[in-house]
Order: sequence, then C-alpha cells, then structure tokens
Amino acid sequence: MAHPMFVKHQDLLGSAVHAIESHGCWSPYADSIDVYGADAVEAGRQAFFEAYPDAQFYLDQPGVVGRGGGEQSPYGPALNVSYPKCSADALIAAAKTAMPAWTKAGPDARAGVCAEILARLNAQSIELAFATMHTTGQSFAMAFQDAGPRAQERGLEAVACAWREMKHVPYRAIWEKARGSRPPLKLDKRYAVVPRGVALVFSCATAPTWSSYSGIFASLATGNAVIVKPHPDAVLPLAITVALARQTLKEAGFDADLVSLLVDTAAAPVAKDVALKPDIRIIDYAGDAEFGNWLEDNARQAMVFTEKAGVNCIVVDAAADYAGMLDNIAFTLSLNSGQMRSAPQTIFVAGHGVRIPTATVPVDTFCRDLARAVGSLLEDPARAVEVLGAIQSPATLARIEALARWFGDVVRAADTIEHPQWPEAAVRTPLLLKAPANDGSVWMEENFGPVAFIVETATTAESLALAERAMREKGALTFSIYSDNDNIVQLAEDASLRTGVTLAINLTGEVFVNQSAGFSDYRATGANPAASGSLTDSGFVAGRFFVVQSYRNA
Amino acid sequence: MAHPMFVKHQDLLGSAVHAIESHGCWSPYADSIDVYGADAVEAGRQAFFEAYPDAQFYLDQPGVVGRGGGEQSPYGPALNVSYPKCSADALIAAAKTAMPAWTKAGPDARAGVCAEILARLNAQSIELAFATMHTTGQSFAMAFQDAGPRAQERGLEAVACAWREMKHVPYRAIWEKARGSRPPLKLDKRYAVVPRGVALVFSCATAPTWSSYSGIFASLATGNAVIVKPHPDAVLPLAITVALARQTLKEAGFDADLVSLLVDTAAAPVAKDVALKPDIRIIDYAGDAEFGNWLEDNARQAMVFTEKAGVNCIVVDAAADYAGMLDNIAFTLSLNSGQMRSAPQTIFVAGHGVRIPTATVPVDTFCRDLARAVGSLLEDPARAVEVLGAIQSPATLARIEALARWFGDVVRAADTIEHPQWPEAAVRTPLLLKAPANDGSVWMEENFGPVAFIVETATTAESLALAERAMREKGALTFSIYSDNDNIVQLAEDASLRTGVTLAINLTGEVFVNQSAGFSDYRATGANPAASGSLTDSGFVAGRFFVVQSYRNA
Repeated sequence: MAHPMFVKHQDLLGSAVHAIESHGCWSPYADSIDVYGADAVEAGRQAFFEAYPDAQFYLDQPGVVGRGGGEQSPYGPALNVSYPKCSADALIAAAKTAMPAWTKAGPDARAGVCAEILARLNAQSIELAFATMHTTGQSFAMAFQDAGPRAQERGLEAVACAWREMKHVPYRAIWEKARGSRPPLKLDKRYAVVPRGVALVFSCATAPTWSSYSGIFASLATGNAVIVKPHPDAVLPLAITVALARQTLKEAGFDADLVSLLVDTAAAPVAKDVALKPDIRIIDYAGDAEFGNWLEDNARQAMVFTEKAGVNCIVVDAAADYAGMLDNIAFTLSLNSGQMRSAPQTIFVAGHGVRIPTATVPVDTFCRDLARAVGSLLEDPARAVEVLGAIQSPATLARIEALARWFGDVVRAADTIEHPQWPEAAVRTPLLLKAPANDGSVWMEENFGPVAFIVETATTAESLALAERAMREKGALTFSIYSDNDNIVQLAEDASLRTGVTLAINLTGEVFVNQSAGFSDYRATGANPAASGSLTDSGFVAGRFFVVQSYRNA
Repeated sequence: MAHPMFVKHQDLLGSAVHAIESHGCWSPYADSIDVYGADAVEAGRQAFFEAYPDAQFYLDQPGVVGRGGGEQSPYGPALNVSYPKCSADALIAAAKTAMPAWTKAGPDARAGVCAEILARLNAQSIELAFATMHTTGQSFAMAFQDAGPRAQERGLEAVACAWREMKHVPYRAIWEKARGSRPPLKLDKRYAVVPRGVALVFSCATAPTWSSYSGIFASLATGNAVIVKPHPDAVLPLAITVALARQTLKEAGFDADLVSLLVDTAAAPVAKDVALKPDIRIIDYAGDAEFGNWLEDNARQAMVFTEKAGVNCIVVDAAADYAGMLDNIAFTLSLNSGQMRSAPQTIFVAGHGVRIPTATVPVDTFCRDLARAVGSLLEDPARAVEVLGAIQSPATLARIEALARWFGDVVRAADTIEHPQWPEAAVRTPLLLKAPANDGSVWMEENFGPVAFIVETATTAESLALAERAMREKGALTFSIYSDNDNIVQLAEDASLRTGVTLAINLTGEVFVNQSAGFSDYRATGANPAASGSLTDSGFVAGRFFVVQSYRNA
C-alpha cells in the first residue's frame, strides 16, 4: 500500500520531475512574502526573539554528551542558543539502525516523506528566514528567499532527481528466453535500491540551508541516513530543519535518527574526525576550498561532493545597453556583500575600452562609471542594507581592510554604512580595485566577500584567455560576457564549455549571475576545481544508491 | 540534421532504452551461431589463422615508437601478432584534439555511431570469437558468446543508459517568471553535455571484450575519447575492436583518434604511468584486486570504476531438486575453468547435512555427490573441453597445483584432460577441497581459477554469517542460496541487500550464476570490495559527463 505522504505528494513529485525534464521556471513554493501572511513577518520576528535567544534547543537525539552553541548575530545580538552535543559514534550507530526500514519502504514512500518535510519547512519559512538572517548576516528579504522557497526548491529538485533515477530501476522482471522447440528458460528477478551508507552534510556559514538541502534530500530520498554538521556560526537554521525532519519522520512511521544534528564549536571542531569514519559513505560540503580539498584528499571511504568556488569572472568587451550592464554588475557585486560563492570577483576589460553603440568608453571611465553605479545603488542606507546585508565573519572584514590598505589602485573604497535598525552590524560597500593583468597572485586568488578587481588587458582575446586560465586553475561557478560581437560571444561559449562554467551573456535587468533557480539552473558542474558535483544533475544522485538483485527459477 | 547513423539506429536505441527500463530478456544480437552462417565457423577459423599469426596488425595511430606483441594461445600456437606501440602522450594529445567535434555532435549522433560500431562488431563475431579463444583459453562456443553477442549487449546497454541520461538534459529552455503587473522576466537558456575527459580502459586477460565494452561505450557515448589498454596476453580482441571503431568513426565524419589502442608488454608495463596522467579523467578496469586497489588509491585525478571480484559464496541448506542443484553447481564451477570473476568459490554446508524431500544427505555424501556430478559433467573429454576451455595463465595452473599439494582434504582432484584438438592446451577439472570453517585464510581468499572449497559449518545460520563476512570483507559478485525454508531464504536476501551481492535462489537448470545478461542483470553493485561500479546502472554513466549552461535575456 502506498505511503500516505506519497499519496499526498505524488502529483507534486510528478510535476517536479516534469520541471527537471523541461528546465523552465517552476516552483511549488511561493516566493512572495505576502503569500505567507501579511502579519507573518512581524509576528515571526517577535516569535523568533521570544523563542530562541538564550534558549535550550530541544532535540531528542541519542548520545548526548553535553550542550554547546553560542552563535552571534552579525547584526549584533548574541543568540546564544544551546544545542545538545552528541557523540558522532552514537549518531552513526543510530543512523545505521534506522536505515533498514527506510530502505525497505522504497523510493515512493521516501520521496513522499521528503516532500512532506519540505512542505513543513516551507510553512516555517519566516522563522527560517530570521534564523538565517541572524546567523549569516543576510538581509531579511534575502534570507527569506535563500532559506525559504529557494532552498526548498533545491531540496525538492534533489528529491525529484533521485526519485526519477530510482524509478528507472524496475521492481521486478520476468526474464524469459525462448529456445526453439524446448521450453523457454524463465527467471523471476527482483531489484532493490539500497543506500550507500550514512551521509554527512557540512553546511556553510553564509547560506546554510540553501547550500545543504540538495545533499540532505538527495541522500535521504535514496535511503541513506543523514548527519548534518552545521558551521558553528550558523547552526540554528539547520537545527530547525533537523528538528522538523525528525518530527516528520516519526509521524511517517520511521526512525527519527535518519536525520540528526552534529554540533561542534570552532574551539573544539569534530569535522575531520567524523569525516574519516569508515561508516560515513557520502559527504556533501559547501564552504572554503581548504577544507573542501582536504575532504577530497582524505575522506577516501566516502563519495565526496564539494562546492568550494574560486574566481568568478566577467569579461567586458562591448555593451548594447551600457547603463543596464553597469547596474547589473553593480548589483551582482553588492548582493549579500559578495558573500556568495557565485559572486563575480574579477572583471576583465581591454585597454582600448568598452564599445557602446555611440562611442568607446575608455577603461578609466568604465571604472568610474561602475563605481558610480555601485554608489547610486547603495546611496540610500535603508535600501543599501537590504542589498548588502551585514558582513558575516570578522575574517571577511579583515580581508577587505587589508586589501584596501596595501593595495594601491582603489577604484571605489569600501564605505561603512550605518544600519538603520542594527547599529552594531558591519556593513560595507564593495571594494573595487584595479589590478595589473600580470599579477595573478591578486586577482586569481579567491577573496570571499565584497571585493572585486578590474583587470585591464591588451585585448578582449587576452581577457578571455586570462579568465579561462583562472576558471580552469582556480575554478568558478559563474562567468559573464558582455559583447555585441558574435565571434567574441562564441569564444566565451567555447571557454565556458572547456572549463565547465555557466556562462551569462549580456545580462542586464533583474537576473543576476550569483542567483540560480532550482529546476532550471545547474549550480556548478563538477568540471573545474570550484565543485566536484552539480546541483542537481543525475551524477549528483546516482551514486548515492546501489541496485541489488535476486532471482530464482520462475 | 540528424546524423545518418543515428537515423539508422534510432529504433534500436529506443528499444534498448525500453529494455533497460523493463529488464526482461532482450537482445538485438543473435546468440545462435547458425544465424551467422552455416559455414561461417570453418571459414572464420581459416581466415583467422591466415590473417593473424606472425602478422603486423595495422592501426594508423599517432606517436608510433615501435612494435610489440607476442601473444601465445592457451591452446598452444604462438600468435605472435605485432601491434604498433604508441606513446601514451601522443594518444592522449590526439584524443584531446578529437573530442571537441565529438562533443558538439551531441548525444544522438554519438549514440548512433556507437550503435553502428556495435553492429559492425556483431558482424565480426566469428573472428572475435577465434581471437578471444586463442588469447583467453575459452572454448570456441563460449568465446563466441562472450566476445560476440554477450559483449555487444553490454556495449549497447551502456550506450542506451548513457543516452537516456544525456537526453534527460534539455537542449534549451525558455525561463519565464511572471511578476504580477510588470512584464515577466525571460531568459533563453541552453544546456550542453560535455565529457569529463580522456578515458582509459583496462581490459583483462580472461574476458577482454565482455569486461571492457561497458566502459568503452559508456565513455564514448558521453563524449569522451577512449584509450584501450589491453592485458598483454589478450590484445587481439581489443585490437580488432579498436580498428573497427576507428574505421567507423572515420566514416561517420569524426576523428579516429577518439578510440585508440595502447599496447605494452609484461616486461615493460606502462599501466601505472598512464593511469596517473592528469589528462586521464576516467578509468575502467577489470582484473585482479591488487592493481584495481592501486588504481583506486592512486589515480586520484580520475573517476575510477573497477571490477576486481572476491569470494563468491554458495550456501547449501536444503534442496527440493537435489540432482538439479548438484548439476547446476558442478557446471558453474567448471564453466571456463572458473576463470570468471563471477564463479563461485566457497560452498558452505551445515554439519547436519542437506535436507532433501525424502531424507537428509550427510555432508560427506554431499561432497561425494558433488564430486560425482562434476565427474559426470566432464566424463567425455570432447564435451569437457567445451565447458572447461583451457587454463589461460601459468599462474592459475601453479595455483591449482600448489593448493592440491599442500591442502589435505581433497574432495575431487584436478584431473588433467587431453584436449582432442589441441594437445598442448592445459585443461584441468575443478579442484574441490574441504576447508575448515575456522580457517578463513583459505576459503576467504580469492583463488582465481577452477578451485572450490566446501566449508562445513555448525548451522546454516553460521553458513550465512560466514558468507556475509566473506562478501563484506573480500567482496563478491554472486551469492547462491539453496533452501526450502522461507526464513532461511529471507536471511540470505537480507545478507544480499546488506553486502550488495546478487542473490541466486535455488538455481537449477541451464542458468548459472557466473553468467549475467545485458539489459536484465546488473553485474556487480559497487557496494562491496568486488567492484566500485555496476554494469550498468545510472551511476556508471552519469559521472562521465557534465552539463554546462549558458543563458541570456530572451
């Protein structure tokens, strides 16, 4: 008999599979905050500050050895939520105990339960938005999108992709081989989808749910148990997620320990120990390249998916809509203070300037125009903080300050903006620097946060060559070309195919390279050092399960 | 415009995809030798011996640095075919040059060309059978199946699986986001399937084409160039395959260097050097565990698929058809002298004996009965050599002799059989030994070739536990249970799911665990040390390509 949660969500799952086949614009989760209720935001804010700061977060997990926590909102207030700290071995043991029944339930039931978890997460989007805002520094509007519908979309996309792959495996087949006048050979064959093992998901400090839901739901849907290890600066959004998943699993008749939270602190990290445990068979990670590379090199017992980013490039050759281009670039550099692995960092422009319909804009003018576009976007502090949010990490702040100090050629300084509501928040406008083309040590290194380099080259061909080198060697998630010349666009497309980086062509208006849409945009490819997998292609889900067969004479 | 080879094979590809969805009995390649022409075998034999021995095999590959070869038929005659030896770097460089046009041709054209290569291989099945017989020691009848239709099925299965996965990626999408009263946001998005890189395929000495076609065609269909590195004892079947693939590619308008042959000798092996080259991004390997493990540990720049086998087990509890069980086991131990990674090695039977409908057969009687079934199967030398073939490697022969010498409890000795046509061929009947349950150093180590151990346990539950331990620790491709007790069968099914080993239940008649059918049987799972992938699930193909996206305002 079909599981009731599968019955409830069967149509949704069908639509989601259709969406990944057609890759158009589709989402079951409303992204207009009005849909969630006119008073929801204010009520949510009050509820959030009543419920969480200085509270003990309840999770009935096994192996509790103490409590930990201590998140600090980038907007100022100490959250100081305390979470149960559990022994990783206890969580792994409980996860293994929980898996056989989850495996036997089959793909439909698992997909249905996952869809139900996502529906309940969606209903809690406002709460997740506040939790995300006050751990990542995102503005509320961005946090709502990022932790709410956009993250839920990525989760459902992973479920749909996993479900489709599992449904390719027949449950049973009668194999009948004709043999002329002799009776046919007949076998009764059964096929079972079995999980790879316990999955470990590392979420990052700047997009904790968005960056982790693909891995969590891909593993869970394919039968694996999932241990979520959040960044110690951004535990709460995942704690809410895990609590809700556990509650849903229990109501669905499964063991809550299929999803658990592993909390540590920056002072006593557990990540490396846990990542090497033989029972951890899948790892999903989003975060800095150093630990991502360490995982790829050392967690040999596991299938490892990382998203580490690198150096995202823009090549400016010509612009049919010069003002539109500047506005688009200015916004993309400012959004969430560049604290996105998809934010552009290095802008190449040829020494002869930027061709526009009526003239050619010299490089220095282009620099000034871009600085002005950033300035005009961020002129009004109330609007500016909605775009910029706050700087999440003191390390990012220190990086901006260090670059501004020792770096000579400042195109636009990182201004400090006072946040109208949160005076303690560190808010900075993007730092724009001009960097010499021959010094890749500057523009070819990732500088996470609101920093961009403008690099003057001899020709657009050189711009493309340097961008390709940076993307190939350092990796990239996004690549932009602005040109009215079909040959140049073609060269950029070729470089995009060779390096495996998504290419945005002449992007103006209200779509930005650092945002990607579930069901339509592949996030990363796996083809360059920025990431070892793609959200969400079939390679991201297929290795999470095995097919085991039995047969007998029929 | 569709590629003519896609037009020609489009229906076939559709049928193949349908076959992998339904997993019944299907093959487009006739497995009755009569279909290939009544006189074909004799004509083929003459042509084979006229064309190949002492000949220079023609391949117009780049980077030729000399010639090498020197295969010896396990049936006696020296083949002494000489092949061009090429620099691996030259083959890799040529492969990389060849790939962009192959990538741009798209999934349909590539699938069509692959299907055409397979159709031409099918037409050369008789020649491939003689080449395989006289390199692997397989009997002609078996070599025909193994190198002909059975291998071609695995190739087409991989093409169909890869094609299905690639076709999940849309070519283009219009993304249109409604925004209430404002005009919608509209993007024109394109998606391209790009290959991972150059693939290296290692084929083994005992099933050179069968074990390599899945990897070759999965990589080729997904846009990768393929370098085939055959075992130095069995080059010819792959040389014929590569020559034919190159010719077909050329006729299809592509660069022949998409498929090339890398020949070395046992005295001067190149495998390790080549496997670590940064441009090698995919490795498929079938062969002994030692080199397979080395590849997994060291070829970190590549996605590595290995099939290494391990210890395949049979648990005998009870038999409704005792004689049928004995005949099935006897055949499965004898087929190709156990020189198959899927051949059973260790047979567990409980001390209280084997329950049959009328009585219980004591263990010693079971041993004698099994020995007798082997004897009766192999009584007639003319029939025996058709089942056994010849021993491929002196190492296998030495292994049998060593085991027979130092091992006390011989159930059935390895008899020498004189081959009626090939007196120089080493033909041995399977060596059956009784091994103590507490000495896993014997029965829990892989002994490739015609050797099986009968292990007496206290109970069938202990049999299952020991089998599970062997499968988990050493890996296995096949697992058999004989029982009339539903609980015991259920326990075996649970062990099969936990270890990821295909389970055969009460197999009698003319289906044997060491054979698996393309489009219906998954060969290996990836879930235990026997193999790191499965022929052919979506995990086997999905990681061979990436999806790269571009978009612009629409």
